[in-house]
Amino acid sequence: MLALVYHGPGQRSWEEVPEPRILADTDAVVRVDAVTICGTDLHILKGDVPDVRPGTVLGHEAVGTVGEVGSAVRSVSPGDRVLISCIAGCGTCRFCREGHYGQCLSGGGWALGHTIDGVQAQYARVPFADLSLHPLPDTVSSEAAVLLADILPTSYEVGVLNGGVTPGDVVVIVGAGPIGLAAVMTAKLYSPSRIVVIDPAAPRRDAAKRIGADVALDAATDDVLEVVRSLTDGLGADVVMEAVGIPETFELATTLVRPGGTVANIGVHGAPATLHLETLWIKNVTITTGLVDTCTTPRLLRLLADHQIDPTPIITHRFRLDQMMEAYDVFSRPGDTGALKVVLERDPATT
Amino acid sequence: MLALVYHGPGQRSWEEVPEPRILADTDAVVRVDAVTICGTDLHILKGDVPDVRPGTVLGHEAVGTVGEVGSAVRSVSPGDRVLISCIAGCGTCRFCREGHYGQCLSGGGWALGHTIDGVQAQYARVPFADLSLHPLPDTVSSEAAVLLADILPTSYEVGVLNGGVTPGDVVVIVGAGPIGLAAVMTAKLYSPSRIVVIDPAAPRRDAAKRIGADVALDAATDDVLEVVRSLTDGLGADVVMEAVGIPETFELATTLVRPGGTVANIGVHGAPATLHLETLWIKNVTITTGLVDTCTTPRLLRLLADHQIDPTPIITHRFRLDQMMEAYDVFSRPGDTGALKVVLERDPATT
Amino acid sequence: MLALVYHGPGQRSWEEVPEPRILADTDAVVRVDAVTICGTDLHILKGDVPDVRPGTVLGHEAVGTVGEVGSAVRSVSPGDRVLISCIAGCGTCRFCREGHYGQCLSGGGWALGHTIDGVQAQYARVPFADLSLHPLPDTVSSEAAVLLADILPTSYEVGVLNGGVTPGDVVVIVGAGPIGLAAVMTAKLYSPSRIVVIDPAAPRRDAAKRIGADVALDAATDDVLEVVRSLTDGLGADVVMEAVGIPETFELATTLVRPGGTVANIGVHGAPATLHLETLWIKNVTITTGLVDTCTTPRLLRLLADHQIDPTPIITHRFRLDQMMEAYDVFSRPGDTGALKVVLERDPATT
Amino acid sequence: MLALVYHGPGQRSWEEVPEPRILADTDAVVRVDAVTICGTDLHILKGDVPDVRPGTVLGHEAVGTVGEVGSAVRSVSPGDRVLISCIAGCGTCRFCREGHYGQCLSGGGWALGHTIDGVQAQYARVPFADLSLHPLPDTVSSEAAVLLADILPTSYEVGVLNGGVTPGDVVVIVGAGPIGLAAVMTAKLYSPSRIVVIDPAAPRRDAAKRIGADVALDAATDDVLEVVRSLTDGLGADVVMEAVGIPETFELATTLVRPGGTVANIGVHGAPATLHLETLWIKNVTITTGLVDTCTTPRLLRLLADHQIDPTPIITHRFRLDQMMEAYDVFSRPGDTGALKVVLERDPATT
Repeated sequence: MLALVYHGPGQRSWEEVPEPRILADTDAVVRVDAVTICGTDLHILKGDVPDVRPGTVLGHEAVGTVGEVGSAVRSVSPGDRVLISCIAGCGTCRFCREGHYGQCLSGGGWALGHTIDGVQAQYARVPFADLSLHPLPDTVSSEAAVLLADILPTSYEVGVLNGGVTPGDVVVIVGAGPIGLAAVMTAKLYSPSRIVVIDPAAPRRDAAKRIGADVALDAATDDVLEVVRSLTDGLGADVVMEAVGIPETFELATTLVRPGGTVANIGVHGAPATLHLETLWIKNVTITTGLVDTCTTPRLLRLLADHQIDPTPIITHRFRLDQMMEAYDVFSRPGDTGALKVVLERDPATT
Repeated sequence: MLALVYHGPGQRSWEEVPEPRILADTDAVVRVDAVTICGTDLHILKGDVPDVRPGTVLGHEAVGTVGEVGSAVRSVSPGDRVLISCIAGCGTCRFCREGHYGQCLSGGGWALGHTIDGVQAQYARVPFADLSLHPLPDTVSSEAAVLLADILPTSYEVGVLNGGVTPGDVVVIVGAGPIGLAAVMTAKLYSPSRIVVIDPAAPRRDAAKRIGADVALDAATDDVLEVVRSLTDGLGADVVMEAVGIPETFELATTLVRPGGTVANIGVHGAPATLHLETLWIKNVTITTGLVDTCTTPRLLRLLADHQIDPTPIITHRFRLDQMMEAYDVFSRPGDTGALKVVLERDPATT
Repeated sequence: MLALVYHGPGQRSWEEVPEPRILADTDAVVRVDAVTICGTDLHILKGDVPDVRPGTVLGHEAVGTVGEVGSAVRSVSPGDRVLISCIAGCGTCRFCREGHYGQCLSGGGWALGHTIDGVQAQYARVPFADLSLHPLPDTVSSEAAVLLADILPTSYEVGVLNGGVTPGDVVVIVGAGPIGLAAVMTAKLYSPSRIVVIDPAAPRRDAAKRIGADVALDAATDDVLEVVRSLTDGLGADVVMEAVGIPETFELATTLVRPGGTVANIGVHGAPATLHLETLWIKNVTITTGLVDTCTTPRLLRLLADHQIDPTPIITHRFRLDQMMEAYDVFSRPGDTGALKVVLERDPATT
Repeated sequence: MLALVYHGPGQRSWEEVPEPRILADTDAVVRVDAVTICGTDLHILKGDVPDVRPGTVLGHEAVGTVGEVGSAVRSVSPGDRVLISCIAGCGTCRFCREGHYGQCLSGGGWALGHTIDGVQAQYARVPFADLSLHPLPDTVSSEAAVLLADILPTSYEVGVLNGGVTPGDVVVIVGAGPIGLAAVMTAKLYSPSRIVVIDPAAPRRDAAKRIGADVALDAATDDVLEVVRSLTDGLGADVVMEAVGIPETFELATTLVRPGGTVANIGVHGAPATLHLETLWIKNVTITTGLVDTCTTPRLLRLLADHQIDPTPIITHRFRLDQMMEAYDVFSRPGDTGALKVVLERDPATT
């Protein structure tokens, strides 16, 4: 079959590899019908994630059709159309029992396209299929569902739930890339009074406003602290989400939060930040970090099926699965292409 | 009357000052019966808290007898024996309505011995008396109650409750000064499996073990990370409390916490710390900070009256109120004197 | 001045009474600009609430302009346009410290139009003005704000928050009177997947659908259990709110809830119900009751000012204040008049 | 092998039956080393639980040694000494994902000795072994561990956690049978100020006091409402647990709770109770019910291993496994025998 293979920093190819097969009786093999590319895949290609060995098939967000299942798989059957979650869970370890699949101690967590072959391929082996695969109703399109593999649960769990967004809140989201935009969408599930988005790229600020942000600022030209204070009786935001992953934006986030508020870090960081405890110690601030658990995927699927959320406005480009190399080109140059999420489908006509 | 007056960095004296009187109809004037000295008072004397103007009477932890009350005071009367909370609350602002008196927007919060004259004196004016004063049952001694003015609610709210200590947890407390020891006491209310205390001073480690810590370590000679891992299947502590207030101990705290755990900062910090987001972003860690609200003082008083807690083992030295200068000398040299908390009473024979 | 006076069961008149004056230094006297009638007022007139003595001015939901304030009132001033909450709180007792003003132990709770003269009058004395009065921004109309005196916080706190409504839930609301409709509005703040309303009156079912219910049923002709099961994989509703107040509807509510779900009782009951513990003991059900605390009124006011909620569709009839007797006539015959909420304004032209 | 077989109402025998074997690849077969009898087993023998078909082996609380495991079992191996939980969980269904194994939709929940053969036998087949079996450290005795199969997690989850016991609370426990006594033990993990137990049997009241209750009352001769009010400033108890299972005791529980408090029902009920909504609607009361999930078993095992709890004082009688019929005789006549929990061990000398 064909797959997108990582061959070390800077090197990827869409090439022939052996088809996957069942290795454990909790596995499933799934035919990939729709797949997308994550900013994390670009990090891997830069060499920032040394856990990923050359030769690995990338990709951790897909929708597919179940082919074969191991003998212990009970909740899906061959032929089922399923969402493949980016996170697997053994279901038995301490963390899985608490729904913290992202921290699975027994081979789950973020495995696909990381420690095992991923889903940017014609077929993929999915471990712990009972917890990793979610059957899809016919009324849900593959391109909508594929956004529930990672970015919607990530923004919802690590941003909105960790942040504790509550009706009437003023929420600031630093960064309007795909994750930041998904955070706007999922924050709105809780009816905040105002959502303020901060991003240097005008097209991303525009996208944020279309999706539902009330205010969109550029930290280079706007006095973001002053704007946030003006919306909050001078106190600061109830919840600030960091959706970039660099020290500057994290530190900005900690200056925008009100006493008693929460900074929810969603960004993937490669360097330490400075924590100004000399001002924060007295402010009753909560700071959270997290890898997604995807424990809310069933809930998000209900919301999608019942038309309470529509993530498709985040999709800017659509390709056939065999246009994988071109899709990577487009996705990796967002300044030129305006790309947010790109979706590749095996057979676009069917959706 | 006599009071301990701050005259600028390094300068304090026990001297004659005018007696306080009612300024607002929510005030009370209280005769001080028992009082203690806080590490924060030493910070003020070093000049670290420039909000405190020379001429201010210090002190924010006392038990006393109500003298006069303003016309709007309803819940205490002259003659009542009361605990004076270190925090005042207007009861009406946004934060006070949520019980966050420490963040009061209308003149409450930490006022005594900070922005107004404090309680290291024969008499003190207490603002917002209805919320700041707590009548004491006869069965509770003044020296026990005075420890509920600050260090017990601080360790309980900012350490134990923010940390979310749960039965069966492994809890690490970095720092075994008065606040750290109070954290041991109040953590035990939730039956953790193990409490590990880290402090460089052997007498403080011994005190921690007497009070209930299971393990007491010296970070200079013990491999604290290894010990914590050995107690936690290699995962790290469920809750880590920072009770020192310097970057090193905060950073140590963030290395000892398990995935999904909480670092509750109690320490008063004067400098920023480094937050290693490059390792923490994926760990689902929660970090909290906070000034005490003293919203749990009624609960702690019930526990004290019903003999569920006994804070008096933290008291190492007792003085008469007029020995204030000597008490400061002893308290400010704990390495020599072994001082933890020192209590001064107006009339020691009566308690 | 003129006021609506209760003269015993079945007897009310709009008549001259003495103007109210400040009795305690925490009081305010407020000129009533807009006021409404509550179903509870009709209960009083039937003699169902014997605490209300003949001679009492009724009414507990109003917007007004502050006239005079007592010496201890700090947060409002003469001339301020304010919402008068149906609940007062001393701010100092055990329950008020926790925000449970409805359970105030010191003369607060539901006092207006109950144990003291109420707001269906030209002027009213409001106790504990600092916590009972909420200044209104100019952009909020009086007729919208008056619905935040009781029915919106009641449906939100006692229904939606006690029920724990969460995005994706299936929510059932039994009863589509004013409180049930307000429950639909405030439940939608949390983006449930489906809201099912049950009411025997077709106009009220229609109103529920206009306001946002997805399904509206008549228990006499629809198989409500079957419909709820069909929407929930056979499990039952996540949250059921009882907004009627009779045994039959409470018992219906307990049959519609899923294992692990919540029945939030909002209705005012005059008789016991049967609790089928023989089936419920094993179902992990939570049942809550409650009088409103109005602790969420500031949050609801933010949502109103920021256009996240609009309660005015619940208003069916508008009157001048001096049409009080006629307004009661209309409100007490909803089957004939279609009345939901009726609003009376002192000077309708100004709003 | 030998097993205790139910042969219809009133009929049980210790008789030869076929040894169990693996039926599903998630099963384990376990040799029973220690087992106990539950009040529920007596209900079954009375015919109160018609789901149990004649011919079923009874028993759902045991400690054993793993014999054989199915191909999909990962977390235990032959030879492991394990606690057999009374509840099984598939780990995959909606409820199991939330830790609500008691409500498992796929064949888990309370199966042993109910819908499949149980553990009062020499060997037992345990479904979903990964989640149902908990390896035991050597330092934990079998007779202590067997009490964690049902009564400790039941009292902890359904009583203490649902009730929300908090330090300083006044807690009332209605019923001092094995479950009520376990509720005393597990409530103490949260340091309530006072625990009041109500039971008509003097020996059970004495046992409650030995285990840690502060007050033990007989509702027939003591004015329990008056005593509870005297301990709570007239307000009522913070948390009341019902641990009997009849209408009278449930109704008593609802009269003893304070405004804002919780009634946690633990009892197994066979008849409806009267819920006095005419007084409760205004009291902000929460009522919970529940079958145990045993999601806290790992936490309770840590507490047991670290000597924070010792359930063995609830054991009154010890037998060899082959004395099963005699053990039933003793357990079913507690008024004569004083029996609380009876433990039967295969080889008593080894523990």
